[in-house]
Amino acid sequence: METTGSIACVGLDPRPDMLPPVLVTEALATHGPGAAGVANAFATFNRGIIDVIAGQCAAIKPQAACYEAYGSAGWAALEATIAYAAAAGIPVVLDAKRGDIGSTATHYGQMAFGGAPGLDGVGVAGIGATWVTANPYLGFDGVGPMMDDANAGIFVLVKTSNPTSADLQDVDVRTGGTVAEQAADCVHEWGAGSVGTSGLSRVGAVVGATYPDHARDLRRHMPNTLFLVPGYGAQGGTGADALAGDRRDGYGVLVSSSRGITGAWQAGRGGDWQTAAATALAEMNADLNASR
Amino acid sequence: METTGSIACVGLDPRPDMLPPVLVTEALATHGPGAAGVANAFATFNRGIIDVIAGQCAAIKPQAACYEAYGSAGWAALEATIAYAAAAGIPVVLDAKRGDIGSTATHYGQMAFGGAPGLDGVGVAGIGATWVTANPYLGFDGVGPMMDDANAGIFVLVKTSNPTSADLQDVDVRTGGTVAEQAADCVHEWGAGSVGTSGLSRVGAVVGATYPDHARDLRRHMPNTLFLVPGYGAQGGTGADALAGDRRDGYGVLVSSSRGITGAWQAGRGGDWQTAAATALAEMNADLNASR
Repeated sequence: METTGSIACVGLDPRPDMLPPVLVTEALATHGPGAAGVANAFATFNRGIIDVIAGQCAAIKPQAACYEAYGSAGWAALEATIAYAAAAGIPVVLDAKRGDIGSTATHYGQMAFGGAPGLDGVGVAGIGATWVTANPYLGFDGVGPMMDDANAGIFVLVKTSNPTSADLQDVDVRTGGTVAEQAADCVHEWGAGSVGTSGLSRVGAVVGATYPDHARDLRRHMPNTLFLVPGYGAQGGTGADALAGDRRDGYGVLVSSSRGITGAWQAGRGGDWQTAAATALAEMNADLNASR
Repeated sequence: METTGSIACVGLDPRPDMLPPVLVTEALATHGPGAAGVANAFATFNRGIIDVIAGQCAAIKPQAACYEAYGSAGWAALEATIAYAAAAGIPVVLDAKRGDIGSTATHYGQMAFGGAPGLDGVGVAGIGATWVTANPYLGFDGVGPMMDDANAGIFVLVKTSNPTSADLQDVDVRTGGTVAEQAADCVHEWGAGSVGTSGLSRVGAVVGATYPDHARDLRRHMPNTLFLVPGYGAQGGTGADALAGDRRDGYGVLVSSSRGITGAWQAGRGGDWQTAAATALAEMNADLNASR
C-alpha cells in the first residue's frame, strides 16, 4: 500500500466467458478446448493483466476455485500466475478459504507458503502466496497452524458479502453480539501476538463491502486487523462502503475487485482488454483514495 | 454400506513419514526427493491400499490438504487416486472443506463433480468425487451451488473433532442451542428436498467422534442426515462413540479412520503394509458392526 499508493487488490478469477477471443483462439489451437486449453488461456490472460497492473495495486487475489475446477492443469495455471506476480513484486492473497483441524491446517499452510517435507526431509516450495484466506468455523486449531511460516498472513472470514451470510454470521449470541462479532473477537485475540510497527497483525479479516454498518462495528472489535474487503463494484459496494471499516491512518482496508478490472473490456470501455483493465484500476484507485 | 456390509471410510491422508521405505526408494530413484517424488509415492501407496480395502469399506476419504501441499504434482496424485478408487467401485468423499459465495461455490462443485465449461462450452470432467466436505460459515450460498450436479452429495461441518471447535461451534445462541445446533438446523433444511428412499438426503453432516453427547443431540436436529464421523481410533474416539449419532436402521453414520488403517504397518502389526491395512480395517469393521 505504501509503495504503490493504492489500497486496491485485483481479483484474478478467470472464467472462459471472460477471455478475450484472441486468447481463446490461441489456446484452442495449441492445447485444445478442454482443461489444458482453459488453463493455458487463464495463465496467458493473467500474465497480460499483471503486466498492466504491476505497481498500480497493493496486491492480487486469485480465487482458487476458478483454477481447481480445471484440475491439476488449472492448479498449474494458478502456480504460474502466482510466480509471475511474485516476480513482478506484487503481494499475493490466495483466496482459498481453507480451514481444517491441526495437522491438516499445517498442510494448507505448506500449500500456500511452503515447507512440506520432501522424501529426503527437505521442505519443498509452496505456491508462493503472501496471504491466504481462512475459515474460522473450526476455531483456532483450524487456522493457527497455517501461520507456522513466520512470514505468513491469513485473512479470516468474519462477515462475508453474500446474501445468506446471515444464516450463521448474523445469529445473536446469548452473551451479546453476533456470531460474526464472536469470530471478530477470535481474530483480534489470534493476532494479538503479531502486531507490527504498522499497528496491524498477521491475522486479517474478510469483511464484505456490501455491509458497511457491520464493518464499522467490526472495526471496534478488531483495531489491529487488516480488513480484506470484497464486493466492491460488481457486488454493489461503493468506495465509501468499502472504506467503512478503515483505520484512521488510511491503511486499514485492502479493497478487492475482480470482474470490475479484468472484465472491464467487456463493459464497453475503450481500448483492448489490457488497456481497459488499467483504466478501470486507475478509476478504482481514484475512487478509493478520495474516500480515505 | 449395503453392498459391503461396512460403514467404515478409509482416510487417505498420506504424508512422507507414513510411506513404506520400499516406496520411498522407488520414488526417489524415478522422480527425485521433491514434490514430484512425493506425489508419485503417494499415488503408488494409495493404489496399494485401495487394492486391499476394495469391497471391505463403504468409501475412501482423501484429505485434499495432504496433496495440495505438493502443488500441481500433488493434485495430479489426488486425481490418480480418485480415478483408481472409482474404477474399483469405491465411493469417494473428497475432504476439502470448501465453501465460498455463489459462483465460486459452483466452481468448487465443478472441481469435485465436473461440468466446468471448456473453451468450446462443453463441460470438462471433475476430479470424480461422490461427496465433498463443505463449510457452513457462509450460509446456504456457500454450499448449495456445490450440489448443482444431481448426483452430488456434500457433508457440511457441524461439530468437528478438534479441541478448539468450541471457539465458535459451542457458543450459545440467544434463541436457544449452540452455533453447531444452528448449523445442524440449516443442514436439515438444506437437505429436506432430496431425501431418498433410504430416508437420507444429499446433505450430510460432519460430526466428530470425540463428542458423542453432541452427536446424540445433533441427530435429533438432523433425522434424515448421513453423519460423516472422523476421529475414530487415532483421535481417541471408540466404536461406541462413533455410533452415538447412528439411526435406528444402522445406516446413519459413516465412520472414518485414516492413520489407523494406512499407518497400521507402523504400529507393529504383522505382515507388510498392505496386509496390516487390511487387518486393521477388518478389526474396525468388526468393532463398528458389533455396536450397530
